[in-house]
Amino acid sequence: MKELIRELREFAKERDWEQFHSPKNLAMALSVEVAEIVEIFQWLSQEESKKLTPAKVEKVKQEIGDVMIFLTNLADKLGIDPLEAAREKIVINRLKYPATLVKGKANKYTEYEE
Amino acid sequence: MKELIRELREFAKERDWEQFHSPKNLAMALSVEVAEIVEIFQWLSQEESKKLTPAKVEKVKQEIGDVMIFLTNLADKLGIDPLEAAREKIVINRLKYPATLVKGKANKYTEYEE
Amino acid sequence: MKELIRELREFAKERDWEQFHSPKNLAMALSVEVAEIVEIFQWLSQEESKKLTPAKVEKVKQEIGDVMIFLTNLADKLGIDPLEAAREKIVINRLKYPATLVKGKANKYTEYEE
Amino acid sequence: MKELIRELREFAKERDWEQFHSPKNLAMALSVEVAEIVEIFQWLSQEESKKLTPAKVEKVKQEIGDVMIFLTNLADKLGIDPLEAAREKIVINRLKYPATLVKGKANKYTEYEE
Repeated sequence: MKELIRELREFAKERDWEQFHSPKNLAMALSVEVAEIVEIFQWLSQEESKKLTPAKVEKVKQEIGDVMIFLTNLADKLGIDPLEAAREKIVINRLKYPATLVKGKANKYTEYEE
Repeated sequence: MKELIRELREFAKERDWEQFHSPKNLAMALSVEVAEIVEIFQWLSQEESKKLTPAKVEKVKQEIGDVMIFLTNLADKLGIDPLEAAREKIVINRLKYPATLVKGKANKYTEYEE
Repeated sequence: MKELIRELREFAKERDWEQFHSPKNLAMALSVEVAEIVEIFQWLSQEESKKLTPAKVEKVKQEIGDVMIFLTNLADKLGIDPLEAAREKIVINRLKYPATLVKGKANKYTEYEE
Repeated sequence: MKELIRELREFAKERDWEQFHSPKNLAMALSVEVAEIVEIFQWLSQEESKKLTPAKVEKVKQEIGDVMIFLTNLADKLGIDPLEAAREKIVINRLKYPATLVKGKANKYTEYEE
């Protein structure tokens, strides 16, 4: 993670792209990259999405790379470590969605409160 | 990264949520979580987006955690490591956007080919 | 359409919200509203998505209303009529995806060129 | 609107694409098309986004056309008219965001309740 952050800072600096990298712009770029993943799956059935050809997996890998890049860029601007944020969020999610209550159901957690 | 993957597998398993976690569905959930980040920034100017209050940074951190969780879940289903995918994509991006050519410009790379 | 545009201009003006309605911000808001539609469908199978309860259809209707509102706001700022844009795009799409060539296939049009 | 719906049904039917047009898939396609609008604005300042060249406006127009197409396709599958949905949502929004309360502020409406 540290190494990725270092590389991304260098990459932006070499290109003088830091001027474009406001958190607002990085949030937009992140959403654009995620849509490129969604595009790959939009017309597939769920079953088909589990059996991608190696060429498609490679394409998804590159798009996941782009999402990870912009997520890390955004997080870095705000002093956040994405891995640490995920670990902390799992703790919160364990409280929001107790296994005994939500087992086998995918409802939004607020619906359990009603 | 390995530890996050292990925790996420356990989290899904405890809740019997693996049945919902097709790559197609995870791509959708990823895009929904990213929109929660975009929502925080949508009415802010770029300058304002650089000066978030600590409470807002904490909120962004939780949303970044959620994005990282679904990105990792999706990647794991396809045998991909998000960190490795990012490192590999940087190598590709260095070729697509040579520093000497794109310095200080944010055009899409295809526009340079025209 | 004309009536909707008139109402939306009045709505923004009464609230002094025109200052926030740059095309950039409206594009972000549009993406956030679309994600609220995606959220409704993210864990459903395709079959389930065809058989929503009336309460869910009403929820989707409200989100479609929000998307239409921001799409019209954005289009209006740029002097575009969404309905006219759609009609013109269909003409282009007829050329991009000739019925004889793409019948029953959902590949991206560029894939047909290869 | 009626004419657009008629054309879109015919367009899908000619190509035997109705099989792909589940509400779930159409929601995904809608989000992908919106991201193509966001992409145009991602690196622009708000001021720049107000002064697009005619060529860029034409590009946005085509993307708005695509969004309108998928929004209408999705709405049609669920028996919803997007224009009517927007008109009804404005009525709801007038209650959620009273002009006297929110004038000149862009906070999310829930924040006013706190």
